[in-house]
Amino acid sequence: MTDEQPHPLDQALALTAQAPGHYTGHTSAAYWNMVGPYGGISAATVLAAVLRHPEALGEPVALTVNYAAALAEGAFTLQAVPERTNRSTQHWTVRVLQPPGPGQPETVVTTATVLTAARRETWSASDSPMPEVPSPAECPAIAPMFPVQWLQRYEMRPVSGLLPQVWDGREADSASCLWVRDAPPRPLDFPALAALADVFYPRVWRRRALQVPAGTVSLTVYFHADAALLARTGSGHLLAQARAQEFRAGFFDQSAQLWNQAGTLLATSHQIVYYKE
Amino acid sequence: MTDEQPHPLDQALALTAQAPGHYTGHTSAAYWNMVGPYGGISAATVLAAVLRHPEALGEPVALTVNYAAALAEGAFTLQAVPERTNRSTQHWTVRVLQPPGPGQPETVVTTATVLTAARRETWSASDSPMPEVPSPAECPAIAPMFPVQWLQRYEMRPVSGLLPQVWDGREADSASCLWVRDAPPRPLDFPALAALADVFYPRVWRRRALQVPAGTVSLTVYFHADAALLARTGSGHLLAQARAQEFRAGFFDQSAQLWNQAGTLLATSHQIVYYKE
Repeated sequence: MTDEQPHPLDQALALTAQAPGHYTGHTSAAYWNMVGPYGGISAATVLAAVLRHPEALGEPVALTVNYAAALAEGAFTLQAVPERTNRSTQHWTVRVLQPPGPGQPETVVTTATVLTAARRETWSASDSPMPEVPSPAECPAIAPMFPVQWLQRYEMRPVSGLLPQVWDGREADSASCLWVRDAPPRPLDFPALAALADVFYPRVWRRRALQVPAGTVSLTVYFHADAALLARTGSGHLLAQARAQEFRAGFFDQSAQLWNQAGTLLATSHQIVYYKE
Repeated sequence: MTDEQPHPLDQALALTAQAPGHYTGHTSAAYWNMVGPYGGISAATVLAAVLRHPEALGEPVALTVNYAAALAEGAFTLQAVPERTNRSTQHWTVRVLQPPGPGQPETVVTTATVLTAARRETWSASDSPMPEVPSPAECPAIAPMFPVQWLQRYEMRPVSGLLPQVWDGREADSASCLWVRDAPPRPLDFPALAALADVFYPRVWRRRALQVPAGTVSLTVYFHADAALLARTGSGHLLAQARAQEFRAGFFDQSAQLWNQAGTLLATSHQIVYYKE
């Protein structure tokens, strides 16, 4: 089927190289959130740019993305710089830029750092076993709870911690857990995993049962999987779990884990989120 | 006492401004670790540079430091750039550079990003209550377990999860908890808190009871405290708790919480650490 449409994720991650590390891209309507692109797609784009760089070494270990401003619909440029290359590790900085208006000079909208490494097999172990939960087939998929595009790009099967059904300020904990994968299904790779690490609705909505304005300002993803493990995971569901630790004066943090269906921890992530009351 | 010596932390954080955002500094023997400066002092230095910048807005919310190479003993330069300033938030990138040898051009040894913000009072809550533990007075201070300088800069009162007493490969969990503060005591500020977020010995040593080579490659600190809360905390002890989630093919992650003695969560932190077997 050579005339098959590429997956929406691959369309969104398309970049045109102008020079090594200098790319142009375009925001994707398919991953649009309320006032800009879904944060996960921005993280995936940053990572995809590094991984396709001709000097890239190894596989991703850590990614931090800082959302300095909302991307506007349209073209952007992305600069990926290998700041330091060691024998088995490599440190990158990335900037995404966009003119704030027609004819204006570009300004920074996103900054990021990436660590890649040539990993080697060694003693390995987990201190975060996957919780015992019903299988994906036992957890019905839900329709998107909001009319935003990016929610249609994920098949979500909540296990616990659904969005509050009534916004009455009575909820009490910040944890939730769901089975999730790309929709339509797509074999997992590192950019897709980075995007999935941001798939949770804001913890303050659950903690407060109030739908206050909230947005991620910095996201860190640690990759524990290598490419072979991602290949074994394929297009299966991931169990994704998140909870907040502290809500304080306009910012809360959130920690998350993502396991494949076989129970292997693929990634852990952390973010700090702006909220307003 | 105008002839009083400044605190070792303040001596270590001394920077000379060459131009706005362009500083020179010098590694501190007082915070030396095995093959370079203690990672926490590098994090504190990055943050101190941003906070003293004439354009700095508000207080720190997030800090990510990437340790691309070990700093050598001697002078370094530090560049702090305000990449984007919004109404109430500001995004920074920082680089620390050093010539790899006499007469050679500078290369990047550390990259970092910092988010500062003018925080405002709002609804706040905690989802990570401080564990119930004996008071600092009930937990005897221990002498440094290794002959490295930085351990003498902290008063450590272990609560649980001491270093293995025998390196026999028999330990089973990765968690530890201690009361800790600067030694000598010093009123807490943001750079000091950033440094304290890295005060834990490598989790793999506890998990394996094997003293394998290990070193932090990326550290993220989220600050939940404002300056007023730090002032109330003063030079009191902090309860610092850390555990790993996954050890996989040469890297493990570690999550930590730091509360003041009144039980308020001041900071959460995350890091990814290289290990070798």
